[in-house]
Amino acid sequence: MLAEPAAAMGIPLRLLAEAEGVSAAQVIVDHQVGDYKDLATLQHITEGCAVVTFDHEHVPTEHLHALESKLAVRPGPEALVYAQDKGLMRRRLGELGVPCPRNAMVASVDEVVAFGLPCVLKVTRGGYDGKGVWFVRDAADAAEAFELGAPVLAEELVEFRRELSAIVARSPSGQVAAYPVVQTTQTDGICTEVVAPAPDLADDLAREAERIAMTVVGELGVTGVMAVEMFETTDGRLLVNELAMRPHNTGHWTQDGAITSQFENHLRAVLDLPLGAPQARAAWTVMVNILPVDGAAPLYAGYRHALARDPRLRVHLYGKELRPGRKVGHVNAWGTDLDETLERARHAAAWFAGELGDESE
Amino acid sequence: MLAEPAAAMGIPLRLLAEAEGVSAAQVIVDHQVGDYKDLATLQHITEGCAVVTFDHEHVPTEHLHALESKLAVRPGPEALVYAQDKGLMRRRLGELGVPCPRNAMVASVDEVVAFGLPCVLKVTRGGYDGKGVWFVRDAADAAEAFELGAPVLAEELVEFRRELSAIVARSPSGQVAAYPVVQTTQTDGICTEVVAPAPDLADDLAREAERIAMTVVGELGVTGVMAVEMFETTDGRLLVNELAMRPHNTGHWTQDGAITSQFENHLRAVLDLPLGAPQARAAWTVMVNILPVDGAAPLYAGYRHALARDPRLRVHLYGKELRPGRKVGHVNAWGTDLDETLERARHAAAWFAGELGDESE
Repeated sequence: MLAEPAAAMGIPLRLLAEAEGVSAAQVIVDHQVGDYKDLATLQHITEGCAVVTFDHEHVPTEHLHALESKLAVRPGPEALVYAQDKGLMRRRLGELGVPCPRNAMVASVDEVVAFGLPCVLKVTRGGYDGKGVWFVRDAADAAEAFELGAPVLAEELVEFRRELSAIVARSPSGQVAAYPVVQTTQTDGICTEVVAPAPDLADDLAREAERIAMTVVGELGVTGVMAVEMFETTDGRLLVNELAMRPHNTGHWTQDGAITSQFENHLRAVLDLPLGAPQARAAWTVMVNILPVDGAAPLYAGYRHALARDPRLRVHLYGKELRPGRKVGHVNAWGTDLDETLERARHAAAWFAGELGDESE
Repeated sequence: MLAEPAAAMGIPLRLLAEAEGVSAAQVIVDHQVGDYKDLATLQHITEGCAVVTFDHEHVPTEHLHALESKLAVRPGPEALVYAQDKGLMRRRLGELGVPCPRNAMVASVDEVVAFGLPCVLKVTRGGYDGKGVWFVRDAADAAEAFELGAPVLAEELVEFRRELSAIVARSPSGQVAAYPVVQTTQTDGICTEVVAPAPDLADDLAREAERIAMTVVGELGVTGVMAVEMFETTDGRLLVNELAMRPHNTGHWTQDGAITSQFENHLRAVLDLPLGAPQARAAWTVMVNILPVDGAAPLYAGYRHALARDPRLRVHLYGKELRPGRKVGHVNAWGTDLDETLERARHAAAWFAGELGDESE
């Protein structure tokens, strides 16, 4: 999705793709296939580039350090490590006084029991979309988290009203643009829906969420877009859940709902260009992910229905093969009435996902 | 600029490029270099495609007919011929009762004098951006138009208040979406500025402009986006100046100013998908073209200044080599105050064009 603003702005991109035919390789002319864990590959592909950036956090830290001698790495390894390692992230945020769920590294089931049950266990590296996360009620549940042999972080089970996300972009020269704080809905650990701005969010909590994101992005020295996912607790506090140092699913609404999209601002930020305005263009913008059900028809079939029913929608499809539960696209709708906007986006996404058919209309 | 909505919608494009490195080839992965005047090339590149469309009107009509036996050609040759040949266009619009400047085919200077001086002479095929057009005051002026040996159309010199453009999209199934009528400013025959909607346009003229565009697109059976450029005469009439059957410079404002851009609606139309809403998203949107002056600095240098001065702009650069007077990009600004919006877009475009420098700030 970076390719769209890069094309508009005339900024040439070069892509290291995991495989021929992946989403980004469909739309970036100058691409090579290779392994991001191989330093020689990284050195080869970045030759002649001014800046390197990432669409995930899994490039080995030592490779990022090696690349830094040749070109700008944004975000840099000193910052990115806090998105790569949840243990380091928790320790650093604690030092900064950023409110987090109570947490501790645990090395055994006994230590989990000592930490307190029920709780959440997470592998510190490599988890995403609910993978590498366990909701643990008793000692027997806890054993599974240690089977991988990876370091495990325990966190209190937070009682929350809802989840929020605060997205900011920061340039190397220190300019920061903060998007409106949004409400996100997760189902089975996967983001399914985002409402911008978060409905009925108290002004002081909105300011606090923005302050937390500004603190984190500045203190960790992040360049580019960063998403701070938070819990709004039932007793009215904010606790940081996760950090992502890249354009994030909870910011996809900005493509059609903000003056400058998170993707354009990520480009501007990593190129150290002045950032674009992050304000919303509509009273409400809703993003709903398309997660195909088993046996869903090819996505293209959804266009005829969804676009005829609602000519004001924007649909984003990623050119991915359909698999149940895989994010293969999203729908953005905006308007002045939240309920109507929600209904429009949800209906279209459900249609593309194969949850609706001619029968149900 | 079709590549951006195609990427968003997950629609695969294949491009026949005039040369390696041209704007479209920079952003469309599946491209080949070849000559659009060669039928074998056209047949080869369209193999396996569902639809073929064009970003100019110069593909030979007989080739379009040949392609039609294999795939959908949109717009089709029966329609496109009226954008290719101004003589046929004038005759057909006359038959449809669409108001045009008084006109006649002329074969000699004597016939021009008989038509009436001053007048405008145009070659019927191949002219653009002021090329192939002569403003003729006396018999001596008229001679030049006949030097090419091409058919020449004479048109009355219209006294106009301003120029307008009505853009519509039409799908093969007959759905039409009409964009707000815009005001366009031409300098030396080249569009330099567009204001959407046209300021102070009388309601009845706006409806009349839309009615004309709807008539033309329907009666000629155009599929895809069509721009109808018109004169608003000093005595308050509308006269059709030119037709373009493709996304058009006078519709570039829609990328950031309309619910659905002309490029997305062109894709939807040629694919016979339901059209997107053409309404404006802001009270005013202004598009200003970037036309470099001699010795202008590389465009990229403009970003630092233009984006810092105005974080609400969107800049579109085409990746073209700079040549004085060549359209190499455009700036879109939108807002609630027309004068301020105009100033913002003009300033940024002038900066990119090299008309401003540090001295002038």
